[in-house]
Amino acid sequence: MIEHLLEPRCVAVVGASRTPGKVGHEIVANLVSGGFEGTIVPVNPSAEDVLGLKCYPDLASFGGKVDLGVVAVPSPAVKAAVTDILNAGAGAVCVITAGFREVGQEGARMEQEIVELCRLRNARLLGPNCLGLINSRIRMNASFAKRMPSFGGISVISQSGALCTAILDWAAARHLGLAKVISMGNKADLAENDFLQAFAEDGDTTVIAAYLESIGSGKDFVKAAEAAASKKPVVILKAGTTLAGAKAASSHTGSLAGADIAYGAAFRRSGVIRAETFEALFDYATALAMQPLPKGNNVAIITNAGGPGIMAADAVEQAGMRVTPLATNVATALREKLPAAASVGNPIDVLGDADPVRYATALNAAQDDDSIDAIIVILTPQAMTRPAETARAIAGCLNGSKPVLVSFMGGEDVMPGREELVACNLPDYPAPERAVAALRAMCDYAAWRRRPERVVARFPVNRRKAERIILRHMRTGRLQMGEAPAKDIMRSYGFNVPDGAVAATCQDAVDVAIRIGFPVAMKIVSPDVIHKSDVGGVRLNLANPDAVRDAYDLMMLRIGRAAPEANLEGVYVEKMGERGREVILGMTRDPQFGPMLMFGLGGIFVEVMRDVTFHLAPITRDEALQMLRGTRSYKLLEGVRGQKSVDLDSLAASIQKLSQLATDFPEVQELDINPLIVGTVGTDPLVADARITLAGRRDNAWHGSH
Amino acid sequence: MIEHLLEPRCVAVVGASRTPGKVGHEIVANLVSGGFEGTIVPVNPSAEDVLGLKCYPDLASFGGKVDLGVVAVPSPAVKAAVTDILNAGAGAVCVITAGFREVGQEGARMEQEIVELCRLRNARLLGPNCLGLINSRIRMNASFAKRMPSFGGISVISQSGALCTAILDWAAARHLGLAKVISMGNKADLAENDFLQAFAEDGDTTVIAAYLESIGSGKDFVKAAEAAASKKPVVILKAGTTLAGAKAASSHTGSLAGADIAYGAAFRRSGVIRAETFEALFDYATALAMQPLPKGNNVAIITNAGGPGIMAADAVEQAGMRVTPLATNVATALREKLPAAASVGNPIDVLGDADPVRYATALNAAQDDDSIDAIIVILTPQAMTRPAETARAIAGCLNGSKPVLVSFMGGEDVMPGREELVACNLPDYPAPERAVAALRAMCDYAAWRRRPERVVARFPVNRRKAERIILRHMRTGRLQMGEAPAKDIMRSYGFNVPDGAVAATCQDAVDVAIRIGFPVAMKIVSPDVIHKSDVGGVRLNLANPDAVRDAYDLMMLRIGRAAPEANLEGVYVEKMGERGREVILGMTRDPQFGPMLMFGLGGIFVEVMRDVTFHLAPITRDEALQMLRGTRSYKLLEGVRGQKSVDLDSLAASIQKLSQLATDFPEVQELDINPLIVGTVGTDPLVADARITLAGRRDNAWHGSH
Repeated sequence: MIEHLLEPRCVAVVGASRTPGKVGHEIVANLVSGGFEGTIVPVNPSAEDVLGLKCYPDLASFGGKVDLGVVAVPSPAVKAAVTDILNAGAGAVCVITAGFREVGQEGARMEQEIVELCRLRNARLLGPNCLGLINSRIRMNASFAKRMPSFGGISVISQSGALCTAILDWAAARHLGLAKVISMGNKADLAENDFLQAFAEDGDTTVIAAYLESIGSGKDFVKAAEAAASKKPVVILKAGTTLAGAKAASSHTGSLAGADIAYGAAFRRSGVIRAETFEALFDYATALAMQPLPKGNNVAIITNAGGPGIMAADAVEQAGMRVTPLATNVATALREKLPAAASVGNPIDVLGDADPVRYATALNAAQDDDSIDAIIVILTPQAMTRPAETARAIAGCLNGSKPVLVSFMGGEDVMPGREELVACNLPDYPAPERAVAALRAMCDYAAWRRRPERVVARFPVNRRKAERIILRHMRTGRLQMGEAPAKDIMRSYGFNVPDGAVAATCQDAVDVAIRIGFPVAMKIVSPDVIHKSDVGGVRLNLANPDAVRDAYDLMMLRIGRAAPEANLEGVYVEKMGERGREVILGMTRDPQFGPMLMFGLGGIFVEVMRDVTFHLAPITRDEALQMLRGTRSYKLLEGVRGQKSVDLDSLAASIQKLSQLATDFPEVQELDINPLIVGTVGTDPLVADARITLAGRRDNAWHGSH
Repeated sequence: MIEHLLEPRCVAVVGASRTPGKVGHEIVANLVSGGFEGTIVPVNPSAEDVLGLKCYPDLASFGGKVDLGVVAVPSPAVKAAVTDILNAGAGAVCVITAGFREVGQEGARMEQEIVELCRLRNARLLGPNCLGLINSRIRMNASFAKRMPSFGGISVISQSGALCTAILDWAAARHLGLAKVISMGNKADLAENDFLQAFAEDGDTTVIAAYLESIGSGKDFVKAAEAAASKKPVVILKAGTTLAGAKAASSHTGSLAGADIAYGAAFRRSGVIRAETFEALFDYATALAMQPLPKGNNVAIITNAGGPGIMAADAVEQAGMRVTPLATNVATALREKLPAAASVGNPIDVLGDADPVRYATALNAAQDDDSIDAIIVILTPQAMTRPAETARAIAGCLNGSKPVLVSFMGGEDVMPGREELVACNLPDYPAPERAVAALRAMCDYAAWRRRPERVVARFPVNRRKAERIILRHMRTGRLQMGEAPAKDIMRSYGFNVPDGAVAATCQDAVDVAIRIGFPVAMKIVSPDVIHKSDVGGVRLNLANPDAVRDAYDLMMLRIGRAAPEANLEGVYVEKMGERGREVILGMTRDPQFGPMLMFGLGGIFVEVMRDVTFHLAPITRDEALQMLRGTRSYKLLEGVRGQKSVDLDSLAASIQKLSQLATDFPEVQELDINPLIVGTVGTDPLVADARITLAGRRDNAWHGSH
């Protein structure tokens, strides 16, 4: 039980040592010096006492009930230690010891043994190969990092123990409180999803900050992260973003996607605030822990120096927020209270000699003004400046209606002010730009919290038909599906596909053309021809039976010559479609997060400009519209130079239908609709070409999901 | 003389006061407590002595020669004070007092008077309305900021006095040395260009860091900045980037340009390193002051913690640099010296228990490896970590062959290490990403320093003809030039323009068409018709005389109906051109920096994607090629999907010719060649349409430049 890990009343340290510097010593020392409120039980057969605490040869000798056992013995002895702990009734084990999965197969086997031991006894395991954990409310430092943080609202999950030590050291220097700090180590059992879930429910935790290098199950992560983010902010720094190896992909969508894009889509989907840098992780977490969320993006800036005020204004505008002037009556009233040389525009310049009262006056005005959603206060240490009193004055007039972020710029002169700010729950940043970035993160999260309820529409489709086509194709053993069956699948999912059929002979082709009506297009059907146009395998605008006949014979003749070994199954004859805006819809299945949908404008926009957006399936209408708006070329969809807008709703519906298809059929590995032809409002987009690749391995698919 | 300002032997403080807190007191106190090596002369008719120094009623009473006079009297008394100072032989005056141009017209007039006084006596003026200045080598703190920095290589120029105080406070907390600190105030006389010039020559200054809100003369700035950047790094934070008001522009180029883009172009041109944030300003300056420039962008990362190593690697790749593995023999040799669990890949992981020797071993390996150009060293405070000794070990093995940047992550535990690092001239950053950003700035600057010599080619053109066309058009009083004369100008500058001529009658049009050969295009010629296509004023592909006749009559009829008031001068008949890739070349004249050239791919790439690059004229071939490569759509020029590359050289030459035209004729305010049709290698780009707007005011143009 994770409560035994996070809130134990009795902690045993197996491998407790009398030798300072040894991990088994440091953990006991940290528990003692941290002031742990519960019982500490050192275990070591060769010691009478450790740091004045009675030491037991094993937990059987102790006899009492243990909640959490911390293991710091050499790896070959870990299994016995865990058994001893479990026998003492512990619901949680934390294995500090390294030398498991991270060193090779034998280590992995030992790790698995420990996991099984715990599972059999319904106990949870943290680690192995971790730093331990801290719960500052109950003063438990069950780690070998010596700093005990003060109590505060941020809980930290880290996949790097070393980063925990840096964070603890850093937080101490800034007097920043932390609720819980978890070093996850090898994540043999407990992992990010467990802690997201636990911290979402944890009354002490107001913000969850995590450093992750990998995640276990993508789907569970999205679920846990969304549940947590719906209750409190979750800020994650995901490292390893660019090192994703190039993966072989047979579709545009697959070649444009990648692990980092998948993480981005998963974070967006689940309301996770992504920190791009280590500093951003705590810049954002601090603001979110200390201040209310903004209701909009209108920002007032209060400063005692022009330059930094301009810097802040630049940063606000570059971040897509607004430097909004005070309401006229508010500005007029404020002008009377400030010296003549002060500016009541935005930035509000309270002048270099501003005293604490002047700051408070300006802050009250901005706080009372409904046209302002957030306030940034800047202070530089000038001759008359009183940083500490100003900090107290700022804190004194806060009414909690909107976020106030502060930048006290400088060093030692402003340090007393900084300490006051932290004590008063005011997030402080060394430069205005960092305050603005934190505010931007707050705005994004607030917008996500205000999002409409997620409703994934289900369209009426002929799922059984699509299933039959897929099963039939799977029996061929080929992964790449031809245009005809791919289009049949699209048709069965309610897409508008031009009439067409495969013709095996010249006369067939003419018959098909006559049946569907001229003009028609003709495309070669062959599993051996990938780039149809390159070998003359595509003919457009065939207007009559003779043209069809000529095209058929020439196509067969020429491709037969160019690729004599190719198996030519016939041609696909289809009705020529209307013209319109070409877009690409795609889907690729991420190994972590499952189906990812892609949207982009066709041709060079995707291939050269890489102007595409991704979103996880299943998708809502709102999210599909966001995908459209997320491209740089969105204006083209809305119409430029007097062109009409395309039918954005039906385009969004196409994305939703693709989402439904991707969710229904795990055996579809990649899919490109390229192009989808989108017309003006009232028209139904047309699938001009479609390409489907099935999943290679059977186990990945089908029966599991049906 | 600026030397009198920066290196005075005798400083008079007029307005010296016995009252602590008064500016006139603080300046004397700062000079005294800073330990100024020269003579300090307090001047105040109502004091006998100030801080133990004899005080004079005026400088005549002092009798000696003064180099620099600092003025801290109320604004009405400033003029007399300046006169007194100049009479004492001072070559420089620093007016701290505010209440001049920044408060209105009367202030501006007083300011001008002081400027004139100084100019008459060949003296230079700093301020008014400034904080003063500091020269740390001679221990002169002639400012009312109380902190005297330690001596170091960075010189600071700031347009914000408050920012100076924040910088001084910040530098003190980081033990960072500064050479000179200048608060420029109103810049009535001395401004950024003077200090760029002075610091370029200053032996104490190794890096120039500036905060600017505006600049005086753009051209002089580019000259001064380029000269300075050719000798030492110049890092500038330019504030007010987004607040540039929308400006009415009649061309695409004009509407896409703006003050911030102009500054960007000017900085690129002159080798200035642009800092986007306040922290970046000193992050970059510190690295540049302390470490040699990298020869390339291959980066090695040394770390005692996996997570931060990955963060650094992510940042390196995102910044467009490379995480390069050590050479095989170097890696093999290193492996033997490190514990088995260490990694000699990149990042090089020296493990959590790394001692100083292990860091030094890894650093030596990376330093000796010719495949590595720069090194980032990361330390987290783990149980066995010794930050101070590690810092000394790192410093001890540096050979100065390549830059080493350090990130000691944490707070108090690593603080002793941080102080050692600064003392050893090692730039230290609180997070790896900031070290990487600083390294990126170093790489960019190093690349600029390695640039080929700037040679602006001059093409043989018919300048006199272009001049005649411009003069003739100016006499009409219209600013917008028609297509025919604009194309004549392009022709005279060696551009390939389709044959064509204006025809005033239907028969004229036919005659012109026959002379130049069919097919032809026809476009309405009217000063009152701006958007020709919108009113049916463009007809293409007219294949024979009848088609020309029909088109002429219909065009006159319809436009006559649609815009009865329009003055229709005739039609422009020209030969239809070849097809090719459409690009836009443009020019707009920035009020600060003069002619700015623009390049982008035609149509939506410019209008929707805003995928354009700018560069100042005059331009070199190398810079023109950079403009092409700077667009996101560059690949389209090189050819995608088997298309051939366009003739990049002749496209660059077109930009160079446009540059020459812009430089030759200041009366050309804006110019769009839209589109320029570019063909494959060996073809000459074709000017399909051109549009020229002349400068409105005469004084802005012509006679000054000829």
